Amino acid sequence: MFRLIALGAAVTLMSLGPAYAAANELLSLSQTIFKPLPAEPPVIEGNPATPAKLDLGKMLFFDPRLSSSQLISCNTCHNVGLAGGDLQETSVGHNWQKGPRNAPTVMNAVFNSAQFWDGRAKDLAEQAKGPVQASVEMNNTPERVLETLSSIPEYVDLFTKAFPGEEKALTFDNVAKAIEVFEAVLLTPAPFDSYLRGDADTLTDREKAGLELFINKGCAGCHDGVNVGGSGYFPFGVVEKPGSEVMSADDKGRFQVTNTASDEYVFRAPSLRNVALTAPYFHSGKVWSLQEATSIMGSSQLGISLTPEDEKLLVTFMKTLNGIQPQIVYPLLPVSTDKTPRPILQ
Amino acid sequence: MFRLIALGAAVTLMSLGPAYAAANELLSLSQTIFKPLPAEPPVIEGNPATPAKLDLGKMLFFDPRLSSSQLISCNTCHNVGLAGGDLQETSVGHNWQKGPRNAPTVMNAVFNSAQFWDGRAKDLAEQAKGPVQASVEMNNTPERVLETLSSIPEYVDLFTKAFPGEEKALTFDNVAKAIEVFEAVLLTPAPFDSYLRGDADTLTDREKAGLELFINKGCAGCHDGVNVGGSGYFPFGVVEKPGSEVMSADDKGRFQVTNTASDEYVFRAPSLRNVALTAPYFHSGKVWSLQEATSIMGSSQLGISLTPEDEKLLVTFMKTLNGIQPQIVYPLLPVSTDKTPRPILQ
Repeated sequence: MFRLIALGAAVTLMSLGPAYAAANELLSLSQTIFKPLPAEPPVIEGNPATPAKLDLGKMLFFDPRLSSSQLISCNTCHNVGLAGGDLQETSVGHNWQKGPRNAPTVMNAVFNSAQFWDGRAKDLAEQAKGPVQASVEMNNTPERVLETLSSIPEYVDLFTKAFPGEEKALTFDNVAKAIEVFEAVLLTPAPFDSYLRGDADTLTDREKAGLELFINKGCAGCHDGVNVGGSGYFPFGVVEKPGSEVMSADDKGRFQVTNTASDEYVFRAPSLRNVALTAPYFHSGKVWSLQEATSIMGSSQLGISLTPEDEKLLVTFMKTLNGIQPQIVYPLLPVSTDKTPRPILQ
Repeated sequence: MFRLIALGAAVTLMSLGPAYAAANELLSLSQTIFKPLPAEPPVIEGNPATPAKLDLGKMLFFDPRLSSSQLISCNTCHNVGLAGGDLQETSVGHNWQKGPRNAPTVMNAVFNSAQFWDGRAKDLAEQAKGPVQASVEMNNTPERVLETLSSIPEYVDLFTKAFPGEEKALTFDNVAKAIEVFEAVLLTPAPFDSYLRGDADTLTDREKAGLELFINKGCAGCHDGVNVGGSGYFPFGVVEKPGSEVMSADDKGRFQVTNTASDEYVFRAPSLRNVALTAPYFHSGKVWSLQEATSIMGSSQLGISLTPEDEKLLVTFMKTLNGIQPQIVYPLLPVSTDKTPRPILQ
């Protein structure tokens, strides 16, 4: 019976003509390479989400008191109104210092295989601890973060509710875990997800042509899976090193994490979700045009010279990864007390 | 008939005893000095609110592209999650420069008689233009703001919708007007408003005792009206100059606006709405404790030495001015284009 139906389907498909069959083939092929965003945030092992933890995580994400200056919050560089990034080449942090790399978007980041451009954090909780302590970012210490949050009775209460049964609920680990749970809900379902779920008509012909190029030219070799990237590590300049104006010799990427020669200038291929909303590009943030970035990827990673029309088609496809951004109600942050440490600006 | 009812009411009142009569007297007296927040935002002359203008104003309020660095938005110093202020003595702006004065809260600011500590802007629209251009704040120019917004088609469209029929909708004046309309909805109804509307039981006995002191000691002489302050100008140190650690000799206040000797060290008495949520205090931001600020006000403005118990009662009353903060959905900001000016950090 099943075979009869399948056969019938095949006959129907063929009767619709070669264009339809080709379109269907592109969809089938895409479904083997990419995955749609799940409808629900993933369950994080060892860190189950609860409404209390989610609310706390959102407050911490927006609270500038995680920084020693009390001026910089996670949202400063991972702005939920700007598709989870900022507008800078490389982020600006404590004392107006310019950091070394472009801020990756926080949207859908939970589906990356690891965090940071060099993958030095295994998950979002580990990631969250980095910028808080980095001298060029929030320039704080775990001790001072805890001193600050402990001085605010409302936070003490919120931690108890978010981490029930834990003897010590207000810990730096739990700060990071709460933020992780909030960040895990920052998902941006896009037209490409509807397509991958089988609605072939979601994409226009030009978008499909761009997708086909994206697969056939080899882009999908690194930018695949649920995040259309975000999982594998590759040398920047597999085929040809980009110019030093784009890739500084000083930033050796994953080598700085593993100290292994083969990891020199190796970076995690970023997710391309919302890429058209998150210029500038590359770890250096030196390229502002998505078409130019696409061109550089062609020559440096694939050893091909894309035509301007190809580049445009690829950009057209990438725009189908622009997702519906989450609606976030700005959290009301609890008031500091006489015991709260004062901002340190220097 | 009416007189009979009135007489009946008076008899009932008297039969409830002197405590009730006194409480009622306090309420009546309060109603002559203060006014409750209206339920609806006020109509702004020459700048009628529309949903389109309100949405645009909210986007501009949160958009860091109003600053030359593209790092600082109105919300940076007037954080809607922090009762409309920041956590700094005096705000920190472009290039990490420390500004001269403490950021006044944006909440309910539409009811102030003028804006800034020295009242140099007559309304919120005029105010909004200041920080955008101040070199220690957003360090931008009107020309560059317009160049930036004009480079973003979505903004061009939003201005046309917010200012229909205007030949040139995208102007610096209209940027300010849209922001003004958004800021005018930032109202925080508080327990004291319910009290002023006649619900005498909203306040506890201690809160009422604090209110009575607030009136009898003279605080309400400057802090009155709908914003419990925010309308009149007074020398800081009417009776006795506070120490230079609180009031620097360099900041001559309204004198810098009017160049009139009698305006030396004159400032607008701030609104006390949400005062317990918006430390630190005074134009200098040098005092972090509300009780200490209250004590200084007693000696410098009223020439009295308040007892610690008086100070505590006054603080207890002032906490009835903590309002319900507006719930703001974070706006999704339109994406920059190749024509958008790049951030300038220096």
